[in-house]
Amino acid sequence: MIYITRKERFNAAHKLYKPEWSEEKNREVFGKCSNPNWHGHNYELFITVKGMPNPETGFVIDLKVLSQIVKENVIDPLDHKNINLDVKFMQGIMASTEMLAMQIWNQLHDAIRSQGAMLHAVKLYETENNFVEYFGNEK
Amino acid sequence: MIYITRKERFNAAHKLYKPEWSEEKNREVFGKCSNPNWHGHNYELFITVKGMPNPETGFVIDLKVLSQIVKENVIDPLDHKNINLDVKFMQGIMASTEMLAMQIWNQLHDAIRSQGAMLHAVKLYETENNFVEYFGNEK
Amino acid sequence: MIYITRKERFNAAHKLYKPEWSEEKNREVFGKCSNPNWHGHNYELFITVKGMPNPETGFVIDLKVLSQIVKENVIDPLDHKNINLDVKFMQGIMASTEMLAMQIWNQLHDAIRSQGAMLHAVKLYETENNFVEYFGNEK
Amino acid sequence: MIYITRKERFNAAHKLYKPEWSEEKNREVFGKCSNPNWHGHNYELFITVKGMPNPETGFVIDLKVLSQIVKENVIDPLDHKNINLDVKFMQGIMASTEMLAMQIWNQLHDAIRSQGAMLHAVKLYETENNFVEYFGNEK
Amino acid sequence: MIYITRKERFNAAHKLYKPEWSEEKNREVFGKCSNPNWHGHNYELFITVKGMPNPETGFVIDLKVLSQIVKENVIDPLDHKNINLDVKFMQGIMASTEMLAMQIWNQLHDAIRSQGAMLHAVKLYETENNFVEYFGNEK
Amino acid sequence: MIYITRKERFNAAHKLYKPEWSEEKNREVFGKCSNPNWHGHNYELFITVKGMPNPETGFVIDLKVLSQIVKENVIDPLDHKNINLDVKFMQGIMASTEMLAMQIWNQLHDAIRSQGAMLHAVKLYETENNFVEYFGNEK
Repeated sequence: MIYITRKERFNAAHKLYKPEWSEEKNREVFGKCSNPNWHGHNYELFITVKGMPNPETGFVIDLKVLSQIVKENVIDPLDHKNINLDVKFMQGIMASTEMLAMQIWNQLHDAIRSQGAMLHAVKLYETENNFVEYFGNEK
Repeated sequence: MIYITRKERFNAAHKLYKPEWSEEKNREVFGKCSNPNWHGHNYELFITVKGMPNPETGFVIDLKVLSQIVKENVIDPLDHKNINLDVKFMQGIMASTEMLAMQIWNQLHDAIRSQGAMLHAVKLYETENNFVEYFGNEK
Repeated sequence: MIYITRKERFNAAHKLYKPEWSEEKNREVFGKCSNPNWHGHNYELFITVKGMPNPETGFVIDLKVLSQIVKENVIDPLDHKNINLDVKFMQGIMASTEMLAMQIWNQLHDAIRSQGAMLHAVKLYETENNFVEYFGNEK
Repeated sequence: MIYITRKERFNAAHKLYKPEWSEEKNREVFGKCSNPNWHGHNYELFITVKGMPNPETGFVIDLKVLSQIVKENVIDPLDHKNINLDVKFMQGIMASTEMLAMQIWNQLHDAIRSQGAMLHAVKLYETENNFVEYFGNEK
Repeated sequence: MIYITRKERFNAAHKLYKPEWSEEKNREVFGKCSNPNWHGHNYELFITVKGMPNPETGFVIDLKVLSQIVKENVIDPLDHKNINLDVKFMQGIMASTEMLAMQIWNQLHDAIRSQGAMLHAVKLYETENNFVEYFGNEK
Repeated sequence: MIYITRKERFNAAHKLYKPEWSEEKNREVFGKCSNPNWHGHNYELFITVKGMPNPETGFVIDLKVLSQIVKENVIDPLDHKNINLDVKFMQGIMASTEMLAMQIWNQLHDAIRSQGAMLHAVKLYETENNFVEYFGNEK
């Protein structure tokens, strides 16, 4: 088994808030991340796939194919978008890095499986100081 | 003369659009940067100050003081904010990296001069691939 | 289960030496790291916590709380200090990156548990070329 | 158990192609990576070793020794070389990042074991966007 | 006047050698960079353009246009190529970072001028430790 | 004229203090940087040299020669040392980044001139957030 990772990027706006809470309560819990007029990030995304190298090509997965899968299912819906307002798979879900990483997993899992490889990890940086890793139900 | 640089960071939302243009015209000129619901970035800011080192301290400027000047005049107004909506010194100004760097210069120039040093450059990264440098009227 | 990591930094002096060995023996075993007058590093520290996201906030742990725990228990005792001389939890312990990472784990484990999350990993960079990871007794 | 990682670098030329395939077939499968006149990369290599710290030195492995083992067995054969033409342990093997990482593991495993530590992982970056991890038969 | 920089990347093979010298002489002067079977790098290229921001758009130059100019004139001819063998504008020229940066300047100067902006600098990294800057005849 | 830069690194201990001041006064002016038992940094040093490329080699300066000059005159005296106590060219001089950069310039200027090139800049990072540039008497 060998693990291969592709890094992609997207720039998006978001805020952390619960509509059923007052602005004061949101400010108290989420601090400046609850700014009603949004803020944003340069997100960095690392998608790790595992499998056996194909004996003909030496590849676990063709990285052009992996990059295309990530582009269609994750980057295009998120890049230069508002995560809370514009992204179908985040509707009704808190726009925290944790919840976003879990939804990105769901967007990618089957498409990678259909290429004969397995999604192993989604790693998502919100800033250089904060990142989240999700391994599905494996770990 | 010696040059000292302090790096700071802020995360903000923005969009590029002219209200007097249609959404189609904005999309044509500014592409995905014109998304009506905003997008955002982790901006990185480098403030370069020049002067002679103080013979007692060996400092051109006390970096704690410089960092405080940048925080009050630039980071606090911009961090976790919407550049178009929330930032007084960007009202009526296109939220491009170029215009933002020039306004940051204006916010800092006098406060740094009052410390006996001179602002030399503002360098502002919007993404790892794009940055702007402004040197006032010097260059 | 989801994993979230916070990066912090500290700058410290140290040396590698055993007081019961001669300076020659120390030089032989530890090379230039045994310089009697110390040397130092910009350490980079990555604290990884795991748990289930809180359904209300979408957080495994509030990063402001995690950052505060790391600051009080690790950064304040180490930053701008001499690891061998100034740091209580390193007294009588070799100031290698390995031993330091293990002691940092001990400083953080209970405080993170008391927040309802679990410390998963301590990753400590001494230089860009050398880093250590510690997972407690898990792995 | 504690994990320590050493980063090393090498610059090499390679191409991806199967000699039994036509140039068209190679171009179709490997894209621009099959350029007959080669291309190249600044590879970054992370070698992770695990073990218990030596009670006298606080070291899992002396990093000078580890660095020397990696230099002799991996860096010297690969640095400023053509991976397909010049590197004995890559003869007859596709010069993909996956296959190269697996062969690097084989070059290092026994020499590290003979130092009383265990090779845990080989992580190899081909570009900033693509890397591979290999853990032997462990995972 | 304001300065804007776009970062691009290419991966290429090259060697340093003079065909009129013996292999020994080449090895003596150029060291391992003269390996007859080539080696390669992940080059990083920073193109700096200067001008006044357009009052309508806030742009010195549209970065999509700049990126396209760099792609057509520099990246496409160099990426996944052999600099000595495959690149027309490097024929008969030593493939050093210095000479390559100067030729990249020549490839870009007029196309950028035709957009109403001025090429200010070409900065080219061969490795993380070595880079070259060229400012035309300005400096 | 073309500019070439070589990056080198050193790890050192230092403190900022004036022996003729009390510990309180030092603490007041220099903050935690005045810790009597020292602290330290991973310094990063960029040496920029300018000149015309040699028509035979395409080099402004042979980087192996430049690296050797920097190693002998700057890295060996500073690496794994205490800047205040161990470094001859810093005796009696405040160990600020500004003063250190200026002394590094003095250590390198003549040796680079004797190679037929000119020292253009010394850039010295103390941390990722603070760096100093010195251009001699040129600017």
